[in-house]
Amino acid sequence: MEKSYTIVIDTLGSDKGPTAILEGCKLVLEKFQNVKLIIVGQEELISSYDFPKDRIRIIEANDTITNLDNIKEALFKKRDASIFKALAECANNDEVIGLICAGNTGALLAGSLRYLLNEKRTRPALAAILPTTVQGKFTCLVDTGASIDCGSEQLIEFAHLGTDFMRKLYKVESPRVALLSNGTEPTKGNALIKETHKLLAHEEGINFVGNVEGSNALNYNCDVLVADGFVGNQLLKITEGSAKNFIMEIMKFGKITGNEAVSKQIVGHLMSIYNFESLGAGILLGAKKYCLKCRGSSGPDAILSAAHILLNITENKTFYEN
Amino acid sequence: MEKSYTIVIDTLGSDKGPTAILEGCKLVLEKFQNVKLIIVGQEELISSYDFPKDRIRIIEANDTITNLDNIKEALFKKRDASIFKALAECANNDEVIGLICAGNTGALLAGSLRYLLNEKRTRPALAAILPTTVQGKFTCLVDTGASIDCGSEQLIEFAHLGTDFMRKLYKVESPRVALLSNGTEPTKGNALIKETHKLLAHEEGINFVGNVEGSNALNYNCDVLVADGFVGNQLLKITEGSAKNFIMEIMKFGKITGNEAVSKQIVGHLMSIYNFESLGAGILLGAKKYCLKCRGSSGPDAILSAAHILLNITENKTFYEN
Repeated sequence: MEKSYTIVIDTLGSDKGPTAILEGCKLVLEKFQNVKLIIVGQEELISSYDFPKDRIRIIEANDTITNLDNIKEALFKKRDASIFKALAECANNDEVIGLICAGNTGALLAGSLRYLLNEKRTRPALAAILPTTVQGKFTCLVDTGASIDCGSEQLIEFAHLGTDFMRKLYKVESPRVALLSNGTEPTKGNALIKETHKLLAHEEGINFVGNVEGSNALNYNCDVLVADGFVGNQLLKITEGSAKNFIMEIMKFGKITGNEAVSKQIVGHLMSIYNFESLGAGILLGAKKYCLKCRGSSGPDAILSAAHILLNITENKTFYEN
Repeated sequence: MEKSYTIVIDTLGSDKGPTAILEGCKLVLEKFQNVKLIIVGQEELISSYDFPKDRIRIIEANDTITNLDNIKEALFKKRDASIFKALAECANNDEVIGLICAGNTGALLAGSLRYLLNEKRTRPALAAILPTTVQGKFTCLVDTGASIDCGSEQLIEFAHLGTDFMRKLYKVESPRVALLSNGTEPTKGNALIKETHKLLAHEEGINFVGNVEGSNALNYNCDVLVADGFVGNQLLKITEGSAKNFIMEIMKFGKITGNEAVSKQIVGHLMSIYNFESLGAGILLGAKKYCLKCRGSSGPDAILSAAHILLNITENKTFYEN
């Protein structure tokens, strides 16, 4: 018999509201018959969905953390916030394989520090698995925005988290680790990068290959790309922004020149490589359980895709394996 | 009679060697009959070109600054370095309107601090004029890599330099200044950005419009985009890297699907908007004279384009005006 898995899904705090997430839950339950869900959010709304009773459980939560909240305060004051209840369930329920949420990133990180610290008490990092110019090959970017102001010891931790992940999930024996910098030479970089460069060169268990520039960030020169959360966030968002602008321009051009069909084909092809939903999804590394952070604007498909990734991780398949 | 202008061109230190730059000089002299050049480099090589004698002067220099040099030391020890001789000529010759070079950026900056400080003793910044999603509209990014480790007072200086430039060159009455951050809220950013955000909000002479995210950096939400040199360099290079990868993918796809002609058209269109040579060219703001830093890999056309920009700046036209 197929093994059964339990996933916690937080339905609150996303841009499109809980119904988009709940539609996603429906897709997950339909596609993966061996999956049970613990759905966190407004009980009445969740109950109104025709979910199979034996495969879902509801945890009621009516509050959410927003960008306006002081996260540290909220951790203590907003006890009814869905993300904290979801994380607590992850921590206390051994059957749960992980969490999917689309709410506030800071709340997820702060909550994971409180509820999901591993035995080494590693500060979790938010990674993204980015498509590269080599088809079917990916680079793991750590961090994408969980830790904005970092010291070198944190970047080294990111290198280890990324290495572990790429070894385990992508079966890369000795993942190549690089630092995102403004030049390939060891002398290039801001103070943080220069210091980290020196340390990583001698760090045990890390296959350090030096600096990578922004222009080559996605050219598969490394398996793990390390950056502080501020700069990593730029890589993620600038790449995505450029892609969107290019696609818009291609569609416009196709319309004007009467080449709409070909333009659509090209755009479809580009989107099949640079899958924006996955570019936007983050995976929390270093916590006791894997948490998938979908973007705020996630629709049902993003939730389904996150569940798929979580199952693959758990079954030790690669990220996007079918 | 048309007014005559003198430009200094440093021929050493670029990736393609002095002949690429000298071919560029030829183009400049052919296209702009009212321009005289002061060409800095190897005398014998320069003399071997058939330049009009009355329109060029040679300054001999046989040394160059490389990425391996300690720039501060080089400033004192490498007195025969072409970039320093070129900058000294800019400083001492009132007829010179500016400098074009394609060598080491650090050397240009360090040299400009020594030779070209303005009366306010502003530390110069390297800006790029980036095409946006609004046709014919540009955003001035400051800094793109001249000052890697910055304090908030420097970012505020960048805001002023960019504002002056966009007002003067692009006739934007009250240029909108934004900070590149990881979120639009004032609470988003690393420590440097958060501090600068507070200060810019009250800075006189600055029309501060808040933070811009990487995903919207080129969506014309601002006229001046402020970042430290490390992060600004990322924006420049990631945008360019994404564009190159997309273009490669479009060409490949066109070939496979038999739509080569349309693909080529689309790529041509994209390149006409996202002009990579101009994305790569930097302009030094805040120095006594304008210096145009072409990328290391510049060919003759990049030198011609830089001369064109320099003339437009001098004649107070917009950057790309014909």
